[in-house]
Amino acid sequence: MSDKTVKVSVVGGTGYTGVELLRLLSRHPAVELQAITSRSLAGQAVEELFPNLRGIVDLKFVGPDTAMLSRSDVVFFATPNGTAMTMARELLDADVRIIDLAADFRLKDIQEWRHWYGVEHACPELLAEAVYGLPEVNRDAIRSARLVANPGCYPTAVQLGFLPLLENGVVDSRRLIADAKSGVSGAGRKESIDKLFAEAADNLKAYSVPGHRHLPEICQGLKAIAGQEVGLTFVPHLIPMIRGIHATLYAELRDDVPDLQSLYQQRYQNEPFVDVLAQGAHPETRSVRGSNMCRIAIHRPQGKPVVVILSVIDNLVKGAAGQAVQNFNLMFGFDEMMGLDQVALLP
Amino acid sequence: MSDKTVKVSVVGGTGYTGVELLRLLSRHPAVELQAITSRSLAGQAVEELFPNLRGIVDLKFVGPDTAMLSRSDVVFFATPNGTAMTMARELLDADVRIIDLAADFRLKDIQEWRHWYGVEHACPELLAEAVYGLPEVNRDAIRSARLVANPGCYPTAVQLGFLPLLENGVVDSRRLIADAKSGVSGAGRKESIDKLFAEAADNLKAYSVPGHRHLPEICQGLKAIAGQEVGLTFVPHLIPMIRGIHATLYAELRDDVPDLQSLYQQRYQNEPFVDVLAQGAHPETRSVRGSNMCRIAIHRPQGKPVVVILSVIDNLVKGAAGQAVQNFNLMFGFDEMMGLDQVALLP
Amino acid sequence: MSDKTVKVSVVGGTGYTGVELLRLLSRHPAVELQAITSRSLAGQAVEELFPNLRGIVDLKFVGPDTAMLSRSDVVFFATPNGTAMTMARELLDADVRIIDLAADFRLKDIQEWRHWYGVEHACPELLAEAVYGLPEVNRDAIRSARLVANPGCYPTAVQLGFLPLLENGVVDSRRLIADAKSGVSGAGRKESIDKLFAEAADNLKAYSVPGHRHLPEICQGLKAIAGQEVGLTFVPHLIPMIRGIHATLYAELRDDVPDLQSLYQQRYQNEPFVDVLAQGAHPETRSVRGSNMCRIAIHRPQGKPVVVILSVIDNLVKGAAGQAVQNFNLMFGFDEMMGLDQVALLP
Amino acid sequence: MSDKTVKVSVVGGTGYTGVELLRLLSRHPAVELQAITSRSLAGQAVEELFPNLRGIVDLKFVGPDTAMLSRSDVVFFATPNGTAMTMARELLDADVRIIDLAADFRLKDIQEWRHWYGVEHACPELLAEAVYGLPEVNRDAIRSARLVANPGCYPTAVQLGFLPLLENGVVDSRRLIADAKSGVSGAGRKESIDKLFAEAADNLKAYSVPGHRHLPEICQGLKAIAGQEVGLTFVPHLIPMIRGIHATLYAELRDDVPDLQSLYQQRYQNEPFVDVLAQGAHPETRSVRGSNMCRIAIHRPQGKPVVVILSVIDNLVKGAAGQAVQNFNLMFGFDEMMGLDQVALLP
Repeated sequence: MSDKTVKVSVVGGTGYTGVELLRLLSRHPAVELQAITSRSLAGQAVEELFPNLRGIVDLKFVGPDTAMLSRSDVVFFATPNGTAMTMARELLDADVRIIDLAADFRLKDIQEWRHWYGVEHACPELLAEAVYGLPEVNRDAIRSARLVANPGCYPTAVQLGFLPLLENGVVDSRRLIADAKSGVSGAGRKESIDKLFAEAADNLKAYSVPGHRHLPEICQGLKAIAGQEVGLTFVPHLIPMIRGIHATLYAELRDDVPDLQSLYQQRYQNEPFVDVLAQGAHPETRSVRGSNMCRIAIHRPQGKPVVVILSVIDNLVKGAAGQAVQNFNLMFGFDEMMGLDQVALLP
Repeated sequence: MSDKTVKVSVVGGTGYTGVELLRLLSRHPAVELQAITSRSLAGQAVEELFPNLRGIVDLKFVGPDTAMLSRSDVVFFATPNGTAMTMARELLDADVRIIDLAADFRLKDIQEWRHWYGVEHACPELLAEAVYGLPEVNRDAIRSARLVANPGCYPTAVQLGFLPLLENGVVDSRRLIADAKSGVSGAGRKESIDKLFAEAADNLKAYSVPGHRHLPEICQGLKAIAGQEVGLTFVPHLIPMIRGIHATLYAELRDDVPDLQSLYQQRYQNEPFVDVLAQGAHPETRSVRGSNMCRIAIHRPQGKPVVVILSVIDNLVKGAAGQAVQNFNLMFGFDEMMGLDQVALLP
Repeated sequence: MSDKTVKVSVVGGTGYTGVELLRLLSRHPAVELQAITSRSLAGQAVEELFPNLRGIVDLKFVGPDTAMLSRSDVVFFATPNGTAMTMARELLDADVRIIDLAADFRLKDIQEWRHWYGVEHACPELLAEAVYGLPEVNRDAIRSARLVANPGCYPTAVQLGFLPLLENGVVDSRRLIADAKSGVSGAGRKESIDKLFAEAADNLKAYSVPGHRHLPEICQGLKAIAGQEVGLTFVPHLIPMIRGIHATLYAELRDDVPDLQSLYQQRYQNEPFVDVLAQGAHPETRSVRGSNMCRIAIHRPQGKPVVVILSVIDNLVKGAAGQAVQNFNLMFGFDEMMGLDQVALLP
Repeated sequence: MSDKTVKVSVVGGTGYTGVELLRLLSRHPAVELQAITSRSLAGQAVEELFPNLRGIVDLKFVGPDTAMLSRSDVVFFATPNGTAMTMARELLDADVRIIDLAADFRLKDIQEWRHWYGVEHACPELLAEAVYGLPEVNRDAIRSARLVANPGCYPTAVQLGFLPLLENGVVDSRRLIADAKSGVSGAGRKESIDKLFAEAADNLKAYSVPGHRHLPEICQGLKAIAGQEVGLTFVPHLIPMIRGIHATLYAELRDDVPDLQSLYQQRYQNEPFVDVLAQGAHPETRSVRGSNMCRIAIHRPQGKPVVVILSVIDNLVKGAAGQAVQNFNLMFGFDEMMGLDQVALLP
């Protein structure tokens, strides 16, 4: 399979990004899974919590111990926001590389971070070093990064959708709209009345319209891509499905619009995990269920100067664990697609 | 209950708007249900097709016979597009009033109709007379109408959402965006692979982005409300839920914006079926499941000059059968809420 | 509508049986809703918790105060198990009648109660007086009852299904099997990981196979119906739907079997809320969604000596709040169907 | 990976078993996919029909041509019942081995076949030769088979559940009950009103209670296992989920019951795709979603003489395409697990 193996630990393996990471890592030919931590479930077999991993992952949860984690080559944090920042310094000092699936290292502006996450950052000095792990934008930096901030699910779908437009300056970047729809797993595996089946099924609502934490992350990314300020209205919606994000993006075209279909196809022609659909297509979230692919379609309804981009990902794969593995592959010099060849489950 | 009763027939009672009409009409105190027609199911008991109507509606389907229908005071058409227009003239001549739940009489422009529906209109001379049955706009005209064109589901949610903004000229009417999400029942009760449970569940897609038939209907309505041309981008999405429409509307505010919350509250304060939620609310589709209510919330994220309106209805009630009964009440002089006091089913 | 009105309070109106009771009571012509209690939400408007009740129920939650409740004619307990028994004595002494939707007064055997509910009963002396509120069995006793124990959801579906067989001794009562399937709302509106949408959707599991609390309740009822001991295997399953119970019942027929279809039709011919379907039918849970009906079909596959009964109810209506209102109607001398004429919502 | 590759064609790749076969075969290291046939879609790219296969399966559908198929080493039939039997003789004569995922070769009794499938069998002489492809029963015969009849989904879950009981004669084989629940994909990818999302969602019903085509298949298998006649009551139910079968099995224990947990563990200890859960467990269908595993739990509620077996599979994998690949591996001498190491997708 692979000549070398990398020692991997996962901190906080009890949520949905955790189980998804384990699903992917357990079949990755170059991964040697060392430890999965959970403070509350230490001692319990992983397969008791996640019956899909019976016979696949033979480990028990252990408490998060930095010394133990230091024996790994890389640590994935699949923890709530605010955990990775308390352990990152010590791990990096022990030459352990880090991929944080939470938000601790995504924002460069410490004020923004404090504003949106409501606490002081525990290691602001690492923010500058951290590399934002969107391979389609930062591939080279990721290869050599010690600390990768894995993007959020909405930010992945939205940035990949807007990217070719903003890189080429073909839309008015002050008037962007992202109407995003997410399956319920995006909210995590935690007790919450409004995520109960009897509440969320056969129902739909927008949420956090006044301001969602992914807004500053998206704006930071789009601004870097566009090379100028952007104005974005971002409205997320909770959809009665388990997995999947569908971002419907709207932008106003400037004059002299190039062929948008070609623009996207050229931009993404070498990207292993971005698939530009044919003209007129409507991507479905199930077409990426369980896979690391992002599928995108470009529309210009009635030929008017408004472009509509449809961008779908699996929030737990390309929007979390799969992208983390993609970053892992880059960081350790593996084929970027290694361990990520799952075919989407349809139906 | 009611001093008088009205003789009612339903043409085409085998689809979802049909069964929903029967649910409502069967409990309406002033309705005497005379006949329900279906060419293909003539002779079969209604309750065999719709088990929820066992013991409620005792009729059998009969073939559509104009002479028989002429004995009714009013005929509801819950038929596919293109049926009502072939029978309307004869019924009107027999002094029967008509409420068409399909699209035959919604568009005033005969060219537009031909363009979007692909056939010649069978009675273009009735288009001018037909009253568009959105009570919040056309209440008085509906009262005296002989022929009411009941609005589509998307058009109801979108127009009620934009109405106060456009009436008061507080937004740029050339840059409207309506991102609409619909449950699968909106597609009707007909065999269609992509509406199968195994296709539509745990999935989400946009559809008809190049152009949906409800676009001209919405634009016609918004233009009348605004008193000027409008530019609308309309993107519908198929959501894995049975009932419900959630329209997320975006518009650019002009300077000197009034208090939007007050604007909506005042506009709709006397409307029995439009509920303006408190500032900051996020309406859920299930809050109107089975009821004729439209619930609306107004947002202005981060104080920027973009207003976001959230508007929810039950596509089969306020978006179809319930609005038809509301129009019926107006046409026959009943309390507008008669027979429409169902509490939404939650959970 | 009705000559008299009854003063009603609801204790514990924050769960699913609570909101369903409010939906029904708010439209009941003889009910004057006085108070809805919730210790934790006192002061909050009911409509904030349950947006379907906006404009319908104008009350705020109040703390549970016995003096205040004593001004009602009847108190419904929509509380967790163990609450009603602590307040029942005082309310009865104040001449307030009680309908308990929880399990406090369902079991006659105090030992059984302690075994299955794990605590001492607070007022065992009331167990004998309490009337089990299954109108199809105990109609007369309910009329004059001060204290009604409203049946559980599974017990309602299972008992109504087996009843004609056991009353007539046509099956081997020692070998009964009830394979029951319930929507997720049956588990209540409480935080629970395994009831999250992302856990319960697109999934199915049996639960509590070693022993479910409804087992003794069902056995007690079946034994009384059969007039002898019964042996029942009861296996409940969690189904990815919001509402609905489907009980699939199996029993071994004795020799000399009468016509089972007639047996059921005769037994239930005067029951307003039990509908015996035609031979060969397969009732659907949605045919009773939101309604108080129980629909039953009888099968004898391949003519073998095994009878299969299919029995469906809405767990929140006939399995809880609707049956409670039915009992209320009996207790206060109203038409048994008053306020219970909702047509099931389909689709 | 593998030293040799096998040339494979799939006849009828447009249904759910077809797309699932393609998902598995496309990642199977020893498979060279030659052709996928569809009479109606000939010329269309497979990825247009199944967007999850974009970039994975590069073929176009071709018409079913026996000469072309004869160049394959093995042909999978993922066709409706009645197709494979018309082509089997010719392919076998051309030294092509066959795995039929439909029912054409499952029943040994030609009369039974005619009774349940309603047509004459096209090649009854092959019924004796055909090997029933349940590896846990017929592993050796499958290895050398030319023609494998891949079991149905219900029969797989039910037989694997009952097998250890019947092999060891510990239950009364005349009184078996199988209450089975299936996701909607089990009905196939075909237009059907009652499989529409708006019909099947939030709903549950039993179906085919008078007699389902899988009944004779199950009985034939159980009889062979038990070595005597069996009496089985089989009731299938349609569940609002995409994939998954949960069979709840009931049997009456004889005296002198051995330890059932050990019985199952020993019987299945070397089976790669049968997982016996710990005592007291309740398997979930999602624990096998997308994987070839069957998970089983054994219960004896309240110590009474009734055993309850819970058996779950993914109807499209172990119940169809995965089991077909397992049979393929056996037939061509590969590791039985080759290409079948997918981890179930959870959530």
